[in-house]
Parts: sequence; structure tokens; C-alpha cells
Amino acid sequence: MPDSSSLPKSSGFGASLRRVLPILDWGLNYQAKDLPGDMMAGMIVAVVLIPQGMAYAMLAGLPPQVGLYASILPLVLYAALGTSRALAVGPVAMVSLLVATGLGPLAAQGSHDYIAAALALALMIGLIQTLMGVVRLGFLVNFLSHAVIVGFTNAAALIIGASQLKHVMGVSLPPAEGFAETLHYLVQSAHQTNGITLLLGVASAGLLLFFSRGLPPWLNRWGVSPAWVTPITRSGPLVVVGGSIGVVWLLGLDQRYGVAIVADIPQGLPSLSWPSFDLGLWQALLPTALAISFVGFMESIAVAKGLASKRRQRINPNQELVALGVANLGAAFTAGYPVTGGVSRSMVNFSAGANTGLASIITAGLIALVVLFFTPLLYHLPLATLAAVILVAVMNLLDIKSVRHLWQVSRWDGVTVVITFLAVLGIGIEAGIVVGLVTSIAFYLWRTSHPHIAEVGRISGTEHFRNIQRHPVQTCEGVLAIRIDESLYFANTKYLEDYLLGVVAQHPKAKTLLIICSAINHIDGSALETLERLIEGLAEAGVTTYLSEVKGPVMDQLQRAGFVDHLGGRDRIFLTTHQAMQALGCT
Amino acid sequence: MPDSSSLPKSSGFGASLRRVLPILDWGLNYQAKDLPGDMMAGMIVAVVLIPQGMAYAMLAGLPPQVGLYASILPLVLYAALGTSRALAVGPVAMVSLLVATGLGPLAAQGSHDYIAAALALALMIGLIQTLMGVVRLGFLVNFLSHAVIVGFTNAAALIIGASQLKHVMGVSLPPAEGFAETLHYLVQSAHQTNGITLLLGVASAGLLLFFSRGLPPWLNRWGVSPAWVTPITRSGPLVVVGGSIGVVWLLGLDQRYGVAIVADIPQGLPSLSWPSFDLGLWQALLPTALAISFVGFMESIAVAKGLASKRRQRINPNQELVALGVANLGAAFTAGYPVTGGVSRSMVNFSAGANTGLASIITAGLIALVVLFFTPLLYHLPLATLAAVILVAVMNLLDIKSVRHLWQVSRWDGVTVVITFLAVLGIGIEAGIVVGLVTSIAFYLWRTSHPHIAEVGRISGTEHFRNIQRHPVQTCEGVLAIRIDESLYFANTKYLEDYLLGVVAQHPKAKTLLIICSAINHIDGSALETLERLIEGLAEAGVTTYLSEVKGPVMDQLQRAGFVDHLGGRDRIFLTTHQAMQALGCT
Repeated sequence: MPDSSSLPKSSGFGASLRRVLPILDWGLNYQAKDLPGDMMAGMIVAVVLIPQGMAYAMLAGLPPQVGLYASILPLVLYAALGTSRALAVGPVAMVSLLVATGLGPLAAQGSHDYIAAALALALMIGLIQTLMGVVRLGFLVNFLSHAVIVGFTNAAALIIGASQLKHVMGVSLPPAEGFAETLHYLVQSAHQTNGITLLLGVASAGLLLFFSRGLPPWLNRWGVSPAWVTPITRSGPLVVVGGSIGVVWLLGLDQRYGVAIVADIPQGLPSLSWPSFDLGLWQALLPTALAISFVGFMESIAVAKGLASKRRQRINPNQELVALGVANLGAAFTAGYPVTGGVSRSMVNFSAGANTGLASIITAGLIALVVLFFTPLLYHLPLATLAAVILVAVMNLLDIKSVRHLWQVSRWDGVTVVITFLAVLGIGIEAGIVVGLVTSIAFYLWRTSHPHIAEVGRISGTEHFRNIQRHPVQTCEGVLAIRIDESLYFANTKYLEDYLLGVVAQHPKAKTLLIICSAINHIDGSALETLERLIEGLAEAGVTTYLSEVKGPVMDQLQRAGFVDHLGGRDRIFLTTHQAMQALGCT
Repeated sequence: MPDSSSLPKSSGFGASLRRVLPILDWGLNYQAKDLPGDMMAGMIVAVVLIPQGMAYAMLAGLPPQVGLYASILPLVLYAALGTSRALAVGPVAMVSLLVATGLGPLAAQGSHDYIAAALALALMIGLIQTLMGVVRLGFLVNFLSHAVIVGFTNAAALIIGASQLKHVMGVSLPPAEGFAETLHYLVQSAHQTNGITLLLGVASAGLLLFFSRGLPPWLNRWGVSPAWVTPITRSGPLVVVGGSIGVVWLLGLDQRYGVAIVADIPQGLPSLSWPSFDLGLWQALLPTALAISFVGFMESIAVAKGLASKRRQRINPNQELVALGVANLGAAFTAGYPVTGGVSRSMVNFSAGANTGLASIITAGLIALVVLFFTPLLYHLPLATLAAVILVAVMNLLDIKSVRHLWQVSRWDGVTVVITFLAVLGIGIEAGIVVGLVTSIAFYLWRTSHPHIAEVGRISGTEHFRNIQRHPVQTCEGVLAIRIDESLYFANTKYLEDYLLGVVAQHPKAKTLLIICSAINHIDGSALETLERLIEGLAEAGVTTYLSEVKGPVMDQLQRAGFVDHLGGRDRIFLTTHQAMQALGCT
């Protein structure tokens, strides 16, 4: 049974402190048996994160070291504050894309202003997420429906993929606005493709795919111990990065064929950075900051919950917001850029055996070692290889299966996916998400404003009443029993009124209308006003209205509003439909 | 029983034509017995409409004759196309206020540009309403909840009242932005009050109130025939207007004391007007046009439905939109301004005996006679009297009783009223309505995203299961029966997941979870995904999940999505909770 043992419910100052600083919970009770898993996971994630951090920084339009800087302090802060034991925080594809599209109009990629804006963005996201967590707004993320997320993710995968093709082709494009323009420029520049760069990129991508998909079955066949499968397959990026550096350096591909490389990366830990407090900049960044705060949290909480449920641990969404917010504040003050919990890296962390936040602290330590001592080794790393790392990573974001499944579940969801997908590609990411959000809410309101209403009858020999059109039931001439399958609120009261007047008109012999309220979960003032007018109108037409199966909270409301007296007293309301039908002479 | 006899359901070309042109329906079958009522109502409404039309035009910032012009052709067009037999179309207070606030920033009140903009506005409203009717968007008006309407109407009454005080005081104010500024200017100008004007205004208002409220009981006491009560009390405005014209003319109040008067009104029918098609103007007017299209329709449909139900006639909302739209087009091309069906004037029409649209046609004919021959008589009409007509009319808009009732029905509705009221007063009418609309939708989403969930047990000796906290019920140790009181959709799935995991954790002995779906009206893709994950998680924890009372439409959906197989087949879903409990060994 899922329990909450990892978040003690006991009261007192110690417990409160442990709730605010989960590191106290696992740190003070650290068990030796957890150490091997944490060390192995920490190392493997570092191996994955070194190339990914640089690649995602490139996707965000930032110098590669920024991605590494964002992989040190933020990880430690999340480990201290986060409620997930396996979440791997750091640069991720989706957030990097949002950074690039948000900063693009403000400054030239890689310029001093651009880097400063990225820091300000991280600071804003840190403040927004922390504040949302403190005032417990974590629930807001629930309004992004699965359909919107699927539509958005698929479109983002295409946008990210398209943005990296120029590096694989070795061409430089003018800054593009939107997906279509990027494609247009790519086609225009196709004839300038650098063949050697393309070869490096394609070979890197092929090798990465081989490591992640081709190798595991072989390793199994060769009888390699399962404990080693993850370390071997996950070292793919490191092998590809190392190999491509070696090839470029040995053959002098950068000098002789103009293959674009990472070149100089400053050595040493990031110096303390101080983000800009320029109000104009903050205003310009606000939509992007809000979008990243939401999207980053959404991605992170989804994977954190998924992994926690496998070990019967619980995630606290608001504490997660605080932890991610503080991690972003850490990125803002150590020359990084916005971070969040990544899906695939967290899965690697989990499957490599991460038991506590110590794994992330080890990862951070290893990345710190890299920036301290090993950045000269990365000089000859070709950009095409980094682009290949991104391309292979975003292939996992393409999720056609979910699109098909949503379409099967409900056409509304299917249409929402398509609208969100097209809107994100067509008018941009933030606007596209808003379109998806509004669409899903509008569809929900549309459905609830046109409720399903069923005429019901008794299932022979039972006290159960069901739709006359779906079940063989007994009905009763003088009594019209109607079940309304929706809460009554302003948007559906007029529909309800028209429907009930219509159905009564179709049954001229009915003298009694029984409204079965089993599916009415609340009633608002608009509905009550309509209902009172309707019942009066029906009474004038010789039809008496009764209610049955009114729920507790609704009954309280009806009494408070004086509706019960209006209806004609408590004996017009029956506890069960069976009792109502008996009392109305329908047995 | 309410029937739809006035809108024949028979098919064929004739019936279709009668549906599009309701005048054919009542015109071709006109019965002599309807004539006296129609004539009386037509005359009384004309008597009310002459001063009101001029007064509302003044409220809208337009010359008085514009209000009269808007009371001719639009009435005839509505009579031809509308489905209500008693609706009195023409200038109304709310729409006039919206015209004034919408046009205020664009041109000086009463200027040539201002009048032209009012025509363009009427044209736009005509097009919007007609189009909405044709594409059947009449349901959209349902999204304005009763709470929003009450909050908005009360605030509008205060704004209208404040805007007229300057005429009663005989002072001229600079153009004010918003309610607070208007009050500020009034207080500032209080020392310039024209005593004679104030006396005229207060006397007019007092006499109007006496006619409408003081006189009816006296007439009853004096034994006046009820058929004469309405004509006598409704002639109040005519008496007041006539009296004040006489007083001003006889005593020369305009010359000697500077009492502001209507002065010259051009004689003759309006000439054909041609509204401006300036794109910039149209863009600037669009928010106002949309607001008036909605608010005007809302006011009109509410009173039309109310009156129709008293005679068991039916109103077709989309045909109403077309009729109002065409009436506004008529206003646009005959030098009028936006119109709609007025609440109080329609009630006068109804209670004076209007049986068909002929009453409105008679009203229009009488107004035409006035503009043809009698406008010189209106020369000395003091503006203070017109302001008094408005002040007395808008007193009926103040509706504190509804505010109190909504507060009793639900705190959510109460808060919505207050927010809408304050927003309309504080940030303006259109923006205030939007704030109210968004608030009511947000509250609805908030409630449905935190559903009521009850643990239920059997009511002894029945097949009925109710909340264990409200009813004395029998439960069963191994089986946890949970009723979810809401449809499952993206905004509440996470809440549901947390709740169910929590409740299962609290019942360590429960091996079976029965989810009673009687109040689940639909399930979306997000919810299904969460549910599948939840059921898997519970299965791993040794808890088996069953469903009962799944409704037809939801069952179809579950089958289509493959959820039934996922759950473990059809035998995991029971038709009734009673059957489920028997099968699970809880009898």
C-alpha cells in the first residue's frame, strides 16, 4: 500500500524542519546500503549530463560552459529541498528551447546582453516558482491537460529538431521567427552544407542510437551482467563526444574543412553572477518566465511522481515548486540558466540506483571537477556532435502513441491535441500553450453546458433505475423520471430548462416530474433561479415536480436558499428513487 | 403544459418561412379579438417611449431626436422577425450607457463624429447579432451567470444615476473617466448648482415616483377599473414632460434662470443614413460592439422568455438574435443608435395587453407622427426632467434582494457579485463584465477541480448507499466504497489521485476499492491516464479496484479506450452498487 513514510506526518519542530528541508530527513538517517547505488547513479548521470548540458546550452543560444555551470549548484540545492529522491535537475531540452525563443527577440544569441537576460530569466523563474510553492499554487499546473501536454511536446520536439539541423549541416542561418521560417532557411541553405560536418553529425547520431537502442539486446545476448548494462549504454554520449573530439583533433577538421567546434571554454568554477534588475527587461521576460515556470514544473512533477510511485514514496507538489525555484535562484547567481527536473536523465538516475539526493550531489561534484580541470579537453568538440546529442534526445519527446490513445478516449481530447500542436508550430510556444489551455477549458465548459439527460426506468426486480434507451426497464405512465448527468450551473441552466420543457411537452399524460439528482454535485444561483421559475411554470401547467437522491452538500444549499420551501416542503424530496417511485404509485 | 404552438414544428416551405419571418405566423392569422389589446398597448408604450427615447439618447450623449428615430424602424423590423409577442424594442438605459462609455474616448458628445460613430456602432452590433443568430451562437450568452448580471446591473444603475445628476443640478462637468471621477466632479461643482433646475428635476422625479408607486393603491381605493390603472399610471412621464414644458415656457425659466432645455429638434422623418466604414473606427468600436451585442441580447432574451412563459409561448434564442440584429441594422440606416428589448417597457407592453407584434408597429407609427409634426412642442422640455425620467427608471435596476439571495445560495456566487460590481465601478463596464465572466468560470473550475468525495455505506434494509458521515449506514471491513461526486477531467485528476491514495493508506485492512461512478458524467484522456496509473499502483499494493454504476456514455468511452481490459475485464464493473457489494461479500 502506498504510504507516506518518507514524509513523516509527526508534528513538532523537528518534523516541520524536515518537511521544509528534506535533506535532514534522508541525510541524518543515511544508510550505508544506499551508498553504492547513489555513487553509481551520480557518476552515470554526470557522464550523460556533461555533453547534454553543453548541448542544451547551445540549444538555448548560450555558450557551452553555461550548461555546465547550471549543472552544479542547482543540483545541490534541489537535493537539499526536493521531495523526490531520484529527480535529476539541470538543463533540459524544453526549457532550453523556451529560453531561446524568449530571449531571441531581445539580444543576439551568445552576446553579453543575451547571457545577462538568461540570468535574469532564471532569477524570475526562481522567484515565481518559490512564491507559487509558498502560497500553494502547485495545483494550477493541473489545468494543463494531458492533451495539451502531448500536443505541445510533439510540436516542441519538431521545433527543437529543426533548430539543430543547421549545426549538423554546418551552415549558419539568419535568426528565424517560427518553425516554418526555420525550415525555409534550411532548404535555402542546403546547397552550402559542409559535407564533413554532416558526416560527423550523422555518424554521432547513429552511434548514439546504437548505444541506446541497438546495444542492450546484444549485451544481454553476450551475457553481460544487468548491473553493467546501464553504465555501458549510458556512456554512449561520452564515447561519441570523446571520439569526435579525437577525430577532429587528429585530422585537423576544424582548420582544414571549417568544421565548427566548441573552442575555448573558460576554466574554473563560475564566478558569482548578479542578474540584472532592469524593469524593462523583466517586463519583456515575464511571459517567458511564466511559461518556463509552468512547463518546467509540469515536466518535473510528472517524472518525480512517476518514479516516487514505483517506490511508494510521496511527492509534495508545493515543496517541489520551492525546491525547483531555489535551484533556479542558484542558477541565476552562479552564471547558469533556467533548469528543471529532466525526464530521461531522472529515469537514468533511478535505474542506475539513486536512493537519495546524494546521487545528485555526486553528479554536481563531478561536473565541478570537469569545469575546474578538464575544459581544455573539450576544445575540439564539434557542434554537430552536440546537435546529434540533442536530436537523439528529442526523438523520445515525439509521442504518436499518446495522440492515438487520446483520440480513442475522446474526440475532444484528440482535437485539443491537434489544435495545440498546430498552434505551437504556427504562432509560437507560449501562445500555443495558452491556445491549448483555453481550448481544453472551452471544450470542458461546452460539454458541461450541454449535459447528458436520461429518462430512466426501473430495472425489473431491483431498486435500480437506468436509462430507458440503454436498458430493459419498466416505466410508469403518469410519472416522468429524469436523471440529469451534470452539476447545474450558469452555463447549462438554459439548456436544462429548454430540455425539461420539451420532454414534458412530449409526454402530455405525465402529471409528475421526478428529477433524480444523483449526478448533480452542486447548484449555483443561476441554476436555482431557473429551477424555481421552471418548477413554477410546470406547476401552472399541472405538472408537480419531485426530487430524489439529492446529495448532502446540495441539500444543505437548497435548504439555505429556501428552495425546499419553494418546492413545497421536505416531502417533495425523496432519499432514494425507489422510495420516490413507491410513494408516487409506481411499483 | 408549455407547448410550442406559436412556433409550428410542421415542415415544408411555408413552415420554414414562418420560422424565419414570424410576422407571417401572426399576421396572416390575425384575429380581431387581439386588436383592442394591441392598440392600447401600442399607444401606452408610445407614451412611455417618447420621453424615454429622448432621455436615453441624452444618456448616450446623443441629440434627443436620435432616440426617437431609433424608436421607429427598429420596432417594425423586430415585429416582423422576433419570436416574442410582447417585447418592446428601442433605446434602453444599459445600452445607452455602454454607447456613451464606448464613444466617449473617440469624439466629443453630440458632435458630428460622435453621431457618426453611434451609427457605425449600431451597424456593427446589427452584423454581430445577426451573424451570431445565423451560426447559432445564442447559447454563448448563457456564460454570463446570474451573479455577474446582478453585480453588473447594480453597478450600471449607480453609474447611470451618477451620470444624470449633473442635469438635475444644472451644472456642466468635464468628461469624466469612470464612476469615481464623476462623483468627484459632482462634489466639486456642487456650489454651482442651479436652484431652479434642481427644483424642476426633483419635482419631476417625485411626480414620476408618485405615478408609478403612489398612485396605483389610490386608484384601487377609488374603485377605478383595473383596465384603466395601467394607462393612468403609465402616462406619468407624459404628464411630467408636458407639465415641465408648460412651466418652463410660461415662466421663461430657460431665458431668466438659465434652465437647460432640449431646444430645437429637427422636424420630419429621419433621412436615410449611411454609417461609416472606416476600418480604424471599427477596430476602436469592436469591444463596445461586442459588449452591447451580448448585454443587449441578454437583457432582451431574459424579459422575452419571462413574458413568453406566462402565455406558454416559446422563444427561439437564435431567431431573437437575428431579429435584434436586423433591428439594429434598421437603426444604423435611419439615423438611430443601438437598440434592444427593454425590460420595463416590455412589461408595460405585456400588461397593457399586447397580443402580437402589431402593438409595436402601432408604437412606431405614433413615434413617427411625433417626429413629423410635434417636435416644436418639445422645445422647452428641460433636461432635468429627462434626467429625472432616467433616474426613476434605473432605480428598478438596483436589486439588493438578488444579491442577498445569491449570497445565501452560495458564497461563490456572492463573491462573484461583489467582484463584478466593484470591477464595473472601478475599471469600467466592458472590462468589469469580462472580470465577472472570468471570475465565475474560474470559480466553477476551482470547485470541479476539488470534487466532493464520500465514503459510502448501505442504508440498512435497502439497496441504497450513502455518505457514512451523513447517514446511519452499514460498512464492510475489507471493502472501501467511494463515491466521486464529479466528472473526471484534467483539472481534478491529480486531486483525485492524492485523495484515493490517502484514503487507502488510512484503511490498511481494505483489500478492495469500489469506485461508485453514479456522479461521473464524463472522463477525459488526462483522467483516464491517471486512473490507469492509480489502479496499477493500487494493484501493486494489494488493493483490487472495481467500478459500479458507470453511466452509458462513460462506459462507451472506457471500452473504446481499452480501459475495461486494462481494469481486468467486464466482471470488474458492476451495474449497481448493491450487486457489487453482494459479489464482494458485503451483504
